[in-house]
Amino acid sequence: MTEQRVEFRVSPDRYRHWKLSADGPVATLTMDVDEQGGLVPGYELKLNSYDLGVDIELYDAVQRLRFEHPEVGAVVITSGKPKIFCAGANIRMLAASPHGWKVNFCKFTNETRNGIEDATANSGQTYLAAINGTASGGGYELALACEHLMLIDDRSSAVSLPELPLLGVLPGTGGLTRVSDKRHVRRDLADYFSTKAEGIGGKKAVQWRLVDEAVPRPRWDQTVAERAAELAGRSGRPGNAPGVALTELAKAREDDAIRYGHVEARLDRAAGSVDISVKGPQTGPPAGIDAAKAQGAEFWPLAVTRELDDLILDLRTNEPELGTWVFRTEGDPAKILAHDELLLSSRQDWFANEVLHYLKRTLRRLDVTSRSLIAVIEPGSCFAGSLLELALAADRSFQLAGVFEDSDAEPATITLGEASLGPLTMSNGLTRLQTRFWGDEAGYEAAAKRKNEALEAEDAADLGLVTFAPDDIDWDEEIRIATEERASFSPDALTGLEANYRFAGPETMETKIFGRLSAWQNWIFNRPNAAGPDGALRRFGTGQRAVFDRKRV
Amino acid sequence: MTEQRVEFRVSPDRYRHWKLSADGPVATLTMDVDEQGGLVPGYELKLNSYDLGVDIELYDAVQRLRFEHPEVGAVVITSGKPKIFCAGANIRMLAASPHGWKVNFCKFTNETRNGIEDATANSGQTYLAAINGTASGGGYELALACEHLMLIDDRSSAVSLPELPLLGVLPGTGGLTRVSDKRHVRRDLADYFSTKAEGIGGKKAVQWRLVDEAVPRPRWDQTVAERAAELAGRSGRPGNAPGVALTELAKAREDDAIRYGHVEARLDRAAGSVDISVKGPQTGPPAGIDAAKAQGAEFWPLAVTRELDDLILDLRTNEPELGTWVFRTEGDPAKILAHDELLLSSRQDWFANEVLHYLKRTLRRLDVTSRSLIAVIEPGSCFAGSLLELALAADRSFQLAGVFEDSDAEPATITLGEASLGPLTMSNGLTRLQTRFWGDEAGYEAAAKRKNEALEAEDAADLGLVTFAPDDIDWDEEIRIATEERASFSPDALTGLEANYRFAGPETMETKIFGRLSAWQNWIFNRPNAAGPDGALRRFGTGQRAVFDRKRV
Repeated sequence: MTEQRVEFRVSPDRYRHWKLSADGPVATLTMDVDEQGGLVPGYELKLNSYDLGVDIELYDAVQRLRFEHPEVGAVVITSGKPKIFCAGANIRMLAASPHGWKVNFCKFTNETRNGIEDATANSGQTYLAAINGTASGGGYELALACEHLMLIDDRSSAVSLPELPLLGVLPGTGGLTRVSDKRHVRRDLADYFSTKAEGIGGKKAVQWRLVDEAVPRPRWDQTVAERAAELAGRSGRPGNAPGVALTELAKAREDDAIRYGHVEARLDRAAGSVDISVKGPQTGPPAGIDAAKAQGAEFWPLAVTRELDDLILDLRTNEPELGTWVFRTEGDPAKILAHDELLLSSRQDWFANEVLHYLKRTLRRLDVTSRSLIAVIEPGSCFAGSLLELALAADRSFQLAGVFEDSDAEPATITLGEASLGPLTMSNGLTRLQTRFWGDEAGYEAAAKRKNEALEAEDAADLGLVTFAPDDIDWDEEIRIATEERASFSPDALTGLEANYRFAGPETMETKIFGRLSAWQNWIFNRPNAAGPDGALRRFGTGQRAVFDRKRV
Repeated sequence: MTEQRVEFRVSPDRYRHWKLSADGPVATLTMDVDEQGGLVPGYELKLNSYDLGVDIELYDAVQRLRFEHPEVGAVVITSGKPKIFCAGANIRMLAASPHGWKVNFCKFTNETRNGIEDATANSGQTYLAAINGTASGGGYELALACEHLMLIDDRSSAVSLPELPLLGVLPGTGGLTRVSDKRHVRRDLADYFSTKAEGIGGKKAVQWRLVDEAVPRPRWDQTVAERAAELAGRSGRPGNAPGVALTELAKAREDDAIRYGHVEARLDRAAGSVDISVKGPQTGPPAGIDAAKAQGAEFWPLAVTRELDDLILDLRTNEPELGTWVFRTEGDPAKILAHDELLLSSRQDWFANEVLHYLKRTLRRLDVTSRSLIAVIEPGSCFAGSLLELALAADRSFQLAGVFEDSDAEPATITLGEASLGPLTMSNGLTRLQTRFWGDEAGYEAAAKRKNEALEAEDAADLGLVTFAPDDIDWDEEIRIATEERASFSPDALTGLEANYRFAGPETMETKIFGRLSAWQNWIFNRPNAAGPDGALRRFGTGQRAVFDRKRV
């Protein structure tokens, strides 16, 4: 395995497609895609169309705005090209990509757009789409992730979702869900809009709620500036605080290992699994949140979250055949709980708020990852507080009852902390604990009452916090069987099973995007009517019409 | 087209697979599948496995219990075969079926199980699963649709969902959703259970909430009888009222037309569409609900609902290439509103209640139908009251503004009635009107305020109750373009689009089953890992292991 891997670490000085400029409380993200800058050869990124490389930069910019720019209260997304805002995902790239690549690409772009909404909702950083040219497909979907949509009213610029009429697929980045559930476009109008390739512009786009306002070109720059200033004015972010720099993440990537400061992954290609080990903090927390800021990117909760985030993205994109991830931890539970306590007691502070929401988003990334997740809780582990979420995110967890023979270690414990009781919600709006005990309030209460107690295996299993509690005699065998068995099952069926069982209870726009919309899109992407040699996706741009099997399924 | 079509009309005297016996307040549905009674040749229905033919009888029985047996307050579902309750959908049938057949089959079986839950929730007819042998896959899913699950405790009988480990697909009839969201089985236990082919029985099945009780064989018959009597005792159904017979539905089925008393469908194979015409009642309603019962199956709301129900099922199963259904109506709006009024004012009566819920279920069937729905509202039409739901269920509607040239007809109107404001909820728990105006309360209020007014096209369009209001000059062209264009799009992408836009707002277990679970299953069914020559579904029973592409998607 020496072929090129996709790397998610990037920084503004290396951007090829975006310009990030911050001017006091308003920042501007200008999309100006380098046609020749595709991540892999074989296509040109014309008309501000994007591929994964373009979106990796966008993700980086959104992250940096939150951490490095506490002074920014509004972010304008606009285009650096004339007449075109963004043409969406590059079609040639999509048509040439294998099914798994397309699905993984859509997942990441969805997460980035959800992150934009998260910044608006939870970070006082409100996004404004300044649609200064046509926004089609993924281009309009990018705008839909913004809070306020302004469309230039010039008789030619329009917003559109041409995927269905032109490509025979769905808009893949939440477009349908946001049109119906966020913009509240009436279903019949939405239906019409999504079949009209040329889209809708001007006043009608406003009337139909597709955008918030249409502004003539002469008043454009001034109106955008006014709106951005208004949105920034509502922000509670500190105007003059210094940011925390997201310094280059130290990472050693080998063929069979990925190592960071606190996280290490060992890749077992024969078994089809990855062993992921997370180290707790070596020391107690800094004296206060300002001291934490002084630690900057080294502050343990931020550092470990960045490492996990990068690891998830790396493994998802580069290692699709490693279907099972086994999580272990190592360290002192008390030190994690103390770090959590610092963050939770400082939530009014912008930095503490950012770290908590970043951890929340990273754990959500894990929830929607199409890999089987297993947590292994052994003596010396530290599944406590925020790190317990890794075990609660797992499809199954094993905690050793007692200790290994001839060991003088203390038995493994888990500790449910305050972090599991509120801030780290899943995309369904509930905590992992609430989701776990959905429909079982007594079970929830019994577990929550044991907050901050170190629970040994039998207790934890009785409370329903871990799945199984084998003793040392059965331990190796049980873990081995669980991972080997997992590797023997259909990977597709596992993906479907996990996507269903991980999200009991209510649905939100976010779960609808990942659960309903993405599942339909997966199916459509995989059908000959789209991806077959005569399918719409493959024939687009060839001058030949697609040939459809007309049977409705 | 003279090949054999699937016919959904059946009656107990013709059942091959079920026995329906009613004994006072408790009825028993005994499954005893005729191995040689498969709907199409090529497989034997061993071990009480089922195909569409078996489920058509079950659907008929569930319907008849509601209408013909007002005295029945509890229904026991059990097996007539020793040691086996039900082995689920027949695997050879599934493996040999084309993708579209599998998906349509699952949709119907899902609807029938939702109907069982609807009887329990809304009809005072509570279902009890008397699992007197192993219930695997669809067999356990059938039990899951029941309110109370009793498992015989004999050291061999178990409940299981072996689809993932044995077949590489998901349980296709709501199993995952009901395990997590109805039974509230904890997600990690659910995960384990769904990968353990042999399933779980006895006390553990109770502890894990998979069933409600495990009963040893010596106490089995008596305990089942006791539980059934208890459930029946809670019912509010009238003990001694006579039922309303669901007499054989009169239907003329030709190659290009399907005709019933009030509903007629013309099949246009060249255009890929069906014109469906629904006639309103010829007379006013009967004097009261007892007079309605005397009309029996001829009572217009019941008759027209049965016809629509059969038509939807016939077209869905037998005419997959007719992708667009165009609805028209004809009749006197006042007479429909008067029939609605009779039903709504008599909702305490069991029969009125049944008719309303049946109409609700039939409209829900339309909502989840993978066909484009268009409503055409012309002079002489009667989209009023409960029939307006057809237009509100449509993806688009057209209402003629004014009249056709040289016509002395009155302009077309629609009338929003009380029926649209409550009883006929969609599977998301909202009315079609609420879903239409999801996020737009002012729009909802403005429309609802015009209740019982005959609204001409411009008013209706302004209120957002119809999509477009062309005048007679544009009329033919607009309708023609809408249907021709629809026929030119990818049928798969349309299915995905409609499945998303029809269900704005909240999700329920039912929408999760149709939207999330079914979409994943569609995808999995369509993947080589399941349906390819080396896939698990095709290799099951051959002694060869499936060969998987191990890449996670």
